[in-house]
Amino acid sequence: MKRTLWHNLNLCAQGDPRDVVEHATIAVNDGKIAWLGASQDLPHEYAGWSREDLQGAWVTPGLVDCHTHLVYGGQRADEFAQRLAGVSYEAIAKQGGGIVSTVRATRAASEDALFEQSAARLEPLLAEGVTAVEIKSGYGLDLASERKMLRVARRLGERYPVTVRTTFLGAHALPPEFAGRADAYIDEVCERMLPALAEEGLVDAVDVFCERIGFSLAQSERVFEAAAKRRIDVKMHAEQLSNSGGAALAARYGALSADHLEFLDEAGIAAMKEAGTVAVLLPGAYYFIRETQLPPLDLLRRYEVPIAISTDSNPGTSPATSLLLMMNMATTLFRMTVPEVLQGVTRHAARAFGDARNHGTLAAGRPADFAVWSVQSLAELAYWIGRPLCARVVRGGETVYERRDLARRDYA
Amino acid sequence: MKRTLWHNLNLCAQGDPRDVVEHATIAVNDGKIAWLGASQDLPHEYAGWSREDLQGAWVTPGLVDCHTHLVYGGQRADEFAQRLAGVSYEAIAKQGGGIVSTVRATRAASEDALFEQSAARLEPLLAEGVTAVEIKSGYGLDLASERKMLRVARRLGERYPVTVRTTFLGAHALPPEFAGRADAYIDEVCERMLPALAEEGLVDAVDVFCERIGFSLAQSERVFEAAAKRRIDVKMHAEQLSNSGGAALAARYGALSADHLEFLDEAGIAAMKEAGTVAVLLPGAYYFIRETQLPPLDLLRRYEVPIAISTDSNPGTSPATSLLLMMNMATTLFRMTVPEVLQGVTRHAARAFGDARNHGTLAAGRPADFAVWSVQSLAELAYWIGRPLCARVVRGGETVYERRDLARRDYA
Ligand SMILES: [Zn+2]
Ligand SMILES: [Zn+2]
Repeated sequence: MKRTLWHNLNLCAQGDPRDVVEHATIAVNDGKIAWLGASQDLPHEYAGWSREDLQGAWVTPGLVDCHTHLVYGGQRADEFAQRLAGVSYEAIAKQGGGIVSTVRATRAASEDALFEQSAARLEPLLAEGVTAVEIKSGYGLDLASERKMLRVARRLGERYPVTVRTTFLGAHALPPEFAGRADAYIDEVCERMLPALAEEGLVDAVDVFCERIGFSLAQSERVFEAAAKRRIDVKMHAEQLSNSGGAALAARYGALSADHLEFLDEAGIAAMKEAGTVAVLLPGAYYFIRETQLPPLDLLRRYEVPIAISTDSNPGTSPATSLLLMMNMATTLFRMTVPEVLQGVTRHAARAFGDARNHGTLAAGRPADFAVWSVQSLAELAYWIGRPLCARVVRGGETVYERRDLARRDYA
Repeated sequence: MKRTLWHNLNLCAQGDPRDVVEHATIAVNDGKIAWLGASQDLPHEYAGWSREDLQGAWVTPGLVDCHTHLVYGGQRADEFAQRLAGVSYEAIAKQGGGIVSTVRATRAASEDALFEQSAARLEPLLAEGVTAVEIKSGYGLDLASERKMLRVARRLGERYPVTVRTTFLGAHALPPEFAGRADAYIDEVCERMLPALAEEGLVDAVDVFCERIGFSLAQSERVFEAAAKRRIDVKMHAEQLSNSGGAALAARYGALSADHLEFLDEAGIAAMKEAGTVAVLLPGAYYFIRETQLPPLDLLRRYEVPIAISTDSNPGTSPATSLLLMMNMATTLFRMTVPEVLQGVTRHAARAFGDARNHGTLAAGRPADFAVWSVQSLAELAYWIGRPLCARVVRGGETVYERRDLARRDYA
């Protein structure tokens, strides 16, 4: 049984930079936090444990990225370059570009190849202090390929020091085989895919893309019913491009979160507040698609809806692999405050993630999953643009990542 | 004398992704490129040299960050947090915030402390393939403190594997001691500071912040004259917040570059074209200050003015330490194309940097300074948001940085 005192650190245990303890200690026993608080208050019983000196660094809970599409085949950089060069969406679609190209590449990839490609996108998140990540399916769009995506997501959680929760997003887009038959595809999702994948233990939550270009409210509700029947948590891609009432529907089903929300209205906000549904904002997608409609921050604040921030990491609308950068974008583009964005990637993100008991805050009895930051002030986490600030990641009491400094020429 | 064949790589020697050689080899002799081209064309004389296999990676010239303020004391994250929380600029200025707080911290820091803080901001750039960086003074604003900044910049170039060119930006802001006496401060800059610092070998170029809130056209011209008298290259912060005719003035003095340029007009563009002055665009500052006036890309293209992209790394308006992210912002926010932004951080940046003979392109006889990218397509360099893509940096033929993969649990 390994017992360690992490000391000489400044502690932000709740993910709220207004609630901190300087000169703090965290006592870790066998991967769990035994005690934490001001070093001067450390009870005598811990005094003999072995010590790790964090040299005045700041410590926060491990970050939680609660909305990602990290597992997929290929990438769309060449399509991105073509669009910038003036090629139209239509012309790109005619060449087989867009989401169907990702579906094609994902279906074609072997499970091992899919794992390797996805692992390369996960690693930068982990080097930034992320210890929990949600990963959605939704580029397979048939049973075998959705299974393959979810199995890769599970393997990522087994092979890397991160807790993965999987989300079945069969209702992401209409697969080519079902063109013009969306209801029939929803039958397939609800009656065949979800039951099989849930049976195999691959589904921690169920998500739907509810949008004019996705699935209707009625179709979304059918998916939610199928999930509810199996007592599986739900969440929704809602109100990204228009207001369709999706967030209110999600709230009615007690959804963990409704995500995107640029076009969310007050009725939806009231419903979310009532249900305890987290508002997940995705500034990377807002930025990348050059959206101008801002999510309704003032109303969300007035109703005190918890707000999370996530990468939405995906090849089409947010090829982002930095959660810190999303914090910066949420401040710069959405005018969120530093306390909002830091809670948005810790405590509130953990609720949207579906496991706030084990993630997003640090307390006695919880896993010792934390990030160590080489900063003077927690505000730096949101302030810098593209600066690697994470010095060390501790998961289950073990150091799983440490930043290496660049070699200097010391002969000088 | 060390002789190496870097092979099994895809080569983008000119920084233009439309001009590439797949299956290429670079022969390096004692730090310089002896030969480069398609592997099948490798002359027999090189065949026996020792080999380094790059496993199909892409190689570009080392990146050039041609406009930075990397050396300064302190940071302004807490001020950033306050502004987001609704504290006014006036209130922050009253507390001693804003640029004067950076001047105060820079003046107060020892040379060693300034070096350490600045080194921590330089390192992320180097890990991204940057092998040449311009560094400006301008937060000292008195002779001793400007000297200290420039000495730190020089030391960074000595201690790290990067070529540093220093720019004296005494005319960055009016120091408090000269409040209301801008012309007297310009006397100080031209007659005392520049001569002394140039004499000490600390000045590779001279810059001026020409703006309503900076220095006037007439004051800028005085600084340029003082530089011209010593045959020192000039450049200018121009047309960022308004059109003042600064770029045309800079062109008249044969400036290496005019930088920012959101409000640049056609007369300024014509003058820059005529003079061969590079347009340096700074999307990080545009993003961070939430500017809405776009730089005149179409006119710059029509006049074929070379365009560079840089971080403008500074504490007040662009706390950015990622040049790749600037490439993404230049595409996303400015609608620049992938070939434009890649040339913007290589060949065109090298001209603005003031040493296109040794930087920005790869050719026989030039230094073997290159970046190795773990990408399938060069477009990925601009496409991903916050993803570390640089696998290795080679400078003078030596590997000076190599990315480390995160450890996986291989028992699984
Ligand atoms: Zn999404
Ligand atoms: Zn600048």
